[in-house]
Amino acid sequence: MGRWEPNARGRLEQAALELYSEQGFEETTVKEIAQRAGLTERTFFRHFTDKREVLFPHSNPLQEFIVTGLVGAPESAAPIDAMAMALEAASGLFQERQEVVRRRQAVVSANPELQERELIKLASLASAVTDALRGRGVEEPAASLVAEAGIAVFKIAFVRWIGETDQGDFARLVRDTFDELKTVTAGG
Amino acid sequence: MGRWEPNARGRLEQAALELYSEQGFEETTVKEIAQRAGLTERTFFRHFTDKREVLFPHSNPLQEFIVTGLVGAPESAAPIDAMAMALEAASGLFQERQEVVRRRQAVVSANPELQERELIKLASLASAVTDALRGRGVEEPAASLVAEAGIAVFKIAFVRWIGETDQGDFARLVRDTFDELKTVTAGG
Repeated sequence: MGRWEPNARGRLEQAALELYSEQGFEETTVKEIAQRAGLTERTFFRHFTDKREVLFPHSNPLQEFIVTGLVGAPESAAPIDAMAMALEAASGLFQERQEVVRRRQAVVSANPELQERELIKLASLASAVTDALRGRGVEEPAASLVAEAGIAVFKIAFVRWIGETDQGDFARLVRDTFDELKTVTAGG
Repeated sequence: MGRWEPNARGRLEQAALELYSEQGFEETTVKEIAQRAGLTERTFFRHFTDKREVLFPHSNPLQEFIVTGLVGAPESAAPIDAMAMALEAASGLFQERQEVVRRRQAVVSANPELQERELIKLASLASAVTDALRGRGVEEPAASLVAEAGIAVFKIAFVRWIGETDQGDFARLVRDTFDELKTVTAGG
């Protein structure tokens, strides 16, 4: 093990995102990322399996947050409200990192292979969320509907949030978008 | 041009799906498909670019049907109702072909690369549907919400439909699933 580097993971992430933005994801090497961060390749590989993992961490904190939120929501909450609470809580993962999140999203959007990876990640999120809802006793098709609708709300709120120039309140946007879902499905 | 073969496209599709089911998509060659269908490889390539196109036609009839349905829905219809009408109409594309559709779905589900392709197709469908709703004057985020929610309903109704042993009424399932969406989003 090399010596301990303060916030090595964050510095590597920052350096990687800069390079992916500047010169493209495909064109960037781990060596360049480590150099830009002032660290060694060895340190890079202590934190990430490969350069794609900077964008798609193996541990999926978003999924863990949402599933934990669903498990912890009051038993009396209607499925859609439990979902809304879990997503609002998960928005906190992004709130303080708008610049990094926005940059990551630009890198992913610019690369078809990464976009596919993102779609796969979202599909597996939907499936984990559906399972968590079933765990709350929600039957089908309600569990799938609430999961899919909730993730659609989150995605749409996310696009609105990263489009805002000032650091807006992501949780509020999630809440508003849920309300708009209720309005449109009611025929409004 | 070779001589005209009656229903060559349908025979090739049928032969391809049989072979993909029996021995796997990767393992099947165009030569085998043509042989099974009693046709030539040349005929195959008059109908399909490659063996993947049997599963994912370039012309996207589902997308065309839904978009046409949205364009044609009464001006007075609420966005969610226009969406429901368009999806009910699109269900007719599948109704008479349950066995073929079910077999295709089993082939796609068994192969990660094909599943990715399916996710990409759905994402591009969502984007075309959102555009069609904007064309009806629906603003954001309502257009994206109605598109995403509608496609979620269609996907869920589709899974229910191919799970039914008898050839159930897909349009009715789409309608019922829309009603359940309304119930769950209202907090039911």
